[in-house]
Amino acid sequence: MDTIPTNDSKCRIVVDAMGGDFSPLNAIVGSIQAYEESGEFELYLVGQTDEIKNVISSNNLSFDNNKILHADEVIEMGEKPTQALKQKPNSSIVVGAKFIRDGNADAFVSAGNTGAVMAASTLIIGRISGVGRPTISVSMPNETGICNLFDVGASVDSKPRHLLEYAIMGSIYTEEINGIKNPTVGILNVGEEEGKGNELTVAASELIKKTNLNFVGNVEGNDIFKGTANVIVCDGFIGNILIKFGEGVLSLLKHRFKDYASQSLTNKIKVGLIRSTMREAMKDFDYQTHGGAPLLGINKISIIGHGSSTPKAIKNMVLRANEMHKKKLIEKISKSITQYSNLK
Amino acid sequence: MDTIPTNDSKCRIVVDAMGGDFSPLNAIVGSIQAYEESGEFELYLVGQTDEIKNVISSNNLSFDNNKILHADEVIEMGEKPTQALKQKPNSSIVVGAKFIRDGNADAFVSAGNTGAVMAASTLIIGRISGVGRPTISVSMPNETGICNLFDVGASVDSKPRHLLEYAIMGSIYTEEINGIKNPTVGILNVGEEEGKGNELTVAASELIKKTNLNFVGNVEGNDIFKGTANVIVCDGFIGNILIKFGEGVLSLLKHRFKDYASQSLTNKIKVGLIRSTMREAMKDFDYQTHGGAPLLGINKISIIGHGSSTPKAIKNMVLRANEMHKKKLIEKISKSITQYSNLK
Repeated sequence: MDTIPTNDSKCRIVVDAMGGDFSPLNAIVGSIQAYEESGEFELYLVGQTDEIKNVISSNNLSFDNNKILHADEVIEMGEKPTQALKQKPNSSIVVGAKFIRDGNADAFVSAGNTGAVMAASTLIIGRISGVGRPTISVSMPNETGICNLFDVGASVDSKPRHLLEYAIMGSIYTEEINGIKNPTVGILNVGEEEGKGNELTVAASELIKKTNLNFVGNVEGNDIFKGTANVIVCDGFIGNILIKFGEGVLSLLKHRFKDYASQSLTNKIKVGLIRSTMREAMKDFDYQTHGGAPLLGINKISIIGHGSSTPKAIKNMVLRANEMHKKKLIEKISKSITQYSNLK
Repeated sequence: MDTIPTNDSKCRIVVDAMGGDFSPLNAIVGSIQAYEESGEFELYLVGQTDEIKNVISSNNLSFDNNKILHADEVIEMGEKPTQALKQKPNSSIVVGAKFIRDGNADAFVSAGNTGAVMAASTLIIGRISGVGRPTISVSMPNETGICNLFDVGASVDSKPRHLLEYAIMGSIYTEEINGIKNPTVGILNVGEEEGKGNELTVAASELIKKTNLNFVGNVEGNDIFKGTANVIVCDGFIGNILIKFGEGVLSLLKHRFKDYASQSLTNKIKVGLIRSTMREAMKDFDYQTHGGAPLLGINKISIIGHGSSTPKAIKNMVLRANEMHKKKLIEKISKSITQYSNLK
């Protein structure tokens, strides 16, 4: 396992040029924009060299060719993660992860096949010592700001110890990256009273109570939007279903509005008038605006973007990676995980 | 355990007059409305006789005093269910459930303490032979109609056999009550591919495959709103978090709209114009319009309403109970559970 970065050197970020539905265009344009705006980090692009060069020249961008890491293969969005990693050792995801594993870079940013990026991060880059399960989060908007939900799909069948790890890592991330001092941490549950819930949450609650985290106990499904806790932990099975359910609610509302608009000209005008409000009210649900989803518990920085990531989303992901490096997030997580290694 | 009703006699429905935030008014007005509109069933009101009589006379309603079942005590909304059942043997919920257990009625309708009604139904009225866990559902709107989600909170830490039971009972309910012939059944999961998911869903999927149910396999969180399956089964821990999460999404949207409206007069007019659309688009999320949530797996009919049930909601619950009786739902569920008793 690699040593944990403890220096204040420039962050070296590898962006998967081939990742995402609009690759390589969006990945390249977004990451070069971030690079030019910030100037603080080193940028590498991994993927098919010719394609990358084409995008750079046809968009009048400038980029150091020596920072292109060639990778012949591409893991497609539909491929089975672990199988794809084995079958495509020369893919941008595998080549990028190995480059980082070998100590040549500090962060990986990809809008490619989520499962493959998670698997490559876990299996190739490796976990922080003491972390049983890495965790991925999304930031949900709420009435007072945001709430970071861990885990939303990296791990299913989590054990109590894993929920504790999500709480530790989520707390550090939320304090350092969202600037919320001593963030409140809750466990997603079916009731607020102590002792409520399933076997997992009851046991996890006992563990988290023994930490110095700002633990507020059980929270319910609607608390995510109330601001009851800054960090909410749950098994990845539930978290993943929840975020897809949330997307589904919004799709259905859009669908209903469209139906309503089609009924008459007056309705159409009404819906047209409110469209900007709807967009405004809903944009927080799009996790691209929060700079992708961090995969915590990995020995280096790993940020995963939505397949449909825009250049702006990619830019935010790259800037977020740099911020995580500057804040020494990996080092802090490692330290805290070690501190609570006795809790099992 | 009582025998399963197999006759076509009039349904005898007991309504908890004391249940709900607006009791006894809403429960009494709603159930008498149902009684007068339908004329098909016998109605009993259980609760504090004087209070019931007061509401009847002050609202100029007519009701046979012999059909009032006196119950001195009231289980409040915040009380712990099993404890409350023990401490208040003369509560409307306990008296009503015992009246049904003793063969005097066929259905219980209450908008009272959900946990207490579930516990009284399970412990006093009793389960259908072969049912390990009763299940409660909500009907979610989708692009093509509705989707019934089982379980939304009756049982946590479900075993594979329980998910099978939810699928069997949910399928029968959806066919008989929603009129969907041979309804499609899915398992809520984190991916559509076979073999995806956690230990529970993988094992439950193997069981459900062996039935004659119209099983479509795994469905994801957003499928609830797409119409991918008419019946979706999940552990009650997830189902409960999901419905509260859904309520939370809508609350947040309302909150955001309110904020937007407060910013300027133009915004206020825009939001005012669209308010009726919002209401229209959202009303399906209110499970009162679907006549409460049926608790299936109980040896008699049991329907639980939201605490804030309106008279209309109560009316729909009572009519639903009558319909379930006419369709011989308990008998059909019992038969199907027996048919699949070898699957474990």
